Amino acid sequence: MNQAAVFINDTFVPAGEAALLVTDLATQRGYGIFDFFKTINNIPVFLDDHLARFYNSAAQMRLPLQQSPEQLKAIIHELIQRNQIPDAGIRISCTGGYPQDGYSITTPNLVITQQPLTPLAADAFEKGLRLVSYNHQRQLPEIKTIDYLMAIWLQPFVKEQQADDLLYYRHGLITECPRANIFMVTADDTVVTPSRNILKGITRMHTLKVARELYKVEERDVTLEEFRAAKEAFISSTTKYILPVLQLDGKPVGNGQPRVVTARLNGVLREYVGKHIG
Amino acid sequence: MNQAAVFINDTFVPAGEAALLVTDLATQRGYGIFDFFKTINNIPVFLDDHLARFYNSAAQMRLPLQQSPEQLKAIIHELIQRNQIPDAGIRISCTGGYPQDGYSITTPNLVITQQPLTPLAADAFEKGLRLVSYNHQRQLPEIKTIDYLMAIWLQPFVKEQQADDLLYYRHGLITECPRANIFMVTADDTVVTPSRNILKGITRMHTLKVARELYKVEERDVTLEEFRAAKEAFISSTTKYILPVLQLDGKPVGNGQPRVVTARLNGVLREYVGKHIG
Repeated sequence: MNQAAVFINDTFVPAGEAALLVTDLATQRGYGIFDFFKTINNIPVFLDDHLARFYNSAAQMRLPLQQSPEQLKAIIHELIQRNQIPDAGIRISCTGGYPQDGYSITTPNLVITQQPLTPLAADAFEKGLRLVSYNHQRQLPEIKTIDYLMAIWLQPFVKEQQADDLLYYRHGLITECPRANIFMVTADDTVVTPSRNILKGITRMHTLKVARELYKVEERDVTLEEFRAAKEAFISSTTKYILPVLQLDGKPVGNGQPRVVTARLNGVLREYVGKHIG
Repeated sequence: MNQAAVFINDTFVPAGEAALLVTDLATQRGYGIFDFFKTINNIPVFLDDHLARFYNSAAQMRLPLQQSPEQLKAIIHELIQRNQIPDAGIRISCTGGYPQDGYSITTPNLVITQQPLTPLAADAFEKGLRLVSYNHQRQLPEIKTIDYLMAIWLQPFVKEQQADDLLYYRHGLITECPRANIFMVTADDTVVTPSRNILKGITRMHTLKVARELYKVEERDVTLEEFRAAKEAFISSTTKYILPVLQLDGKPVGNGQPRVVTARLNGVLREYVGKHIG
């Protein structure tokens, strides 16, 4: 069992004792937010970006965080020092607390956990991803809530469809994967990604930043049909960087040519992350 | 602090120690189900109905409950004996368990809590309810999941609108309140309630049963316009029995005449519940 230290509210405890009372509003009513970032060699990657999003999620969800960003940063650095898991994922969570009535937001519970990050398989980029489309719009999509009900529920469907992950769409427009943002590359090498009704990933933001140096970039609505006909397609995520999308609904995406733009962006993104922590 | 006994997985613990590890799939990803029933004089009301729905929710959500309905019933009766809270609410919850990957359903956690039920105010029926409509469709509506994200999040909105609760609608059709079913009475005393995209309440079921003895009853789509023009409107819930809806979006519902059908149904429903436990 993982016995890394976990921070809860005001104290560090071993993971095996890191618990919340069952009256917590996350357990009772699914009410909570989180953020997730990685460390490389004990250095948190894009920590300020993740903290900014976390505080924004808390504000939007009316969760009165008790810690300032500076305090949270100090706690995170202490967690990293205590645990010594150089390449890790760190999750900061905030729930609705322990309400008397089981229904109202009260003093939130803050939980920070750290776990070793499984390295991406060496052939992950070559293998790419097969996605299956699903008509669903997440509620409050721009806030990083703990609502993954459909994503978890649909896992057997994803397997049945011989896919690796879901691609949500609504009214014919693609939005996102449950834990990644989606991009396509058009015939003229424009990099395009949906702009609305999505969680704006930190890796998405940095991908757009490096892409703008090299290509024309558009944040706009993308139809399923347009996506199917794209020259290249890829996802971005904290743990996966950039991975090509090879199939949607069992049919190939792309024209069978090498995925030049995707590969190049993955390279420059990895270099950019390296510089950021260097 | 409430120190009633709580049942977790295989053991009774005091409420102050009733906790789940933070790796639980409810805390991590909002993944869980529950059911809720009341006791009157230590007798569970409609227990078989609630257990049937709970097992159905578990099956639909792919949660492999470890206990048989008979075992669960025995545990519930032991909880009632231990706690001696004659008029109580009992909540049975089942979460996705403690997955290694933080994302997949594993052996579920079962939690059963009991709390005293605050009696309904003596004038609750006379005061009735003011609802405010909101365009929202719950995901997986027919399953009693822990997803109350919008309901909790919209509480300030409900207050701002000087309402008591939400009435969800989508595509112009009303569905339900977050914790109650909705009914209307037409000019010819037909009792009408939505049939689709709702959680089918146990009290809704019994209300329909007693209503069928007295009135014409229809389960069908109901538009917001039709609802606004209804002769009477009411909600049904485990804790509230039947309460009239007096306002929607700040405007009166009903023609200002006494709510004869609503009052009569509340009377026969209460009598029916009394007989059921008698």
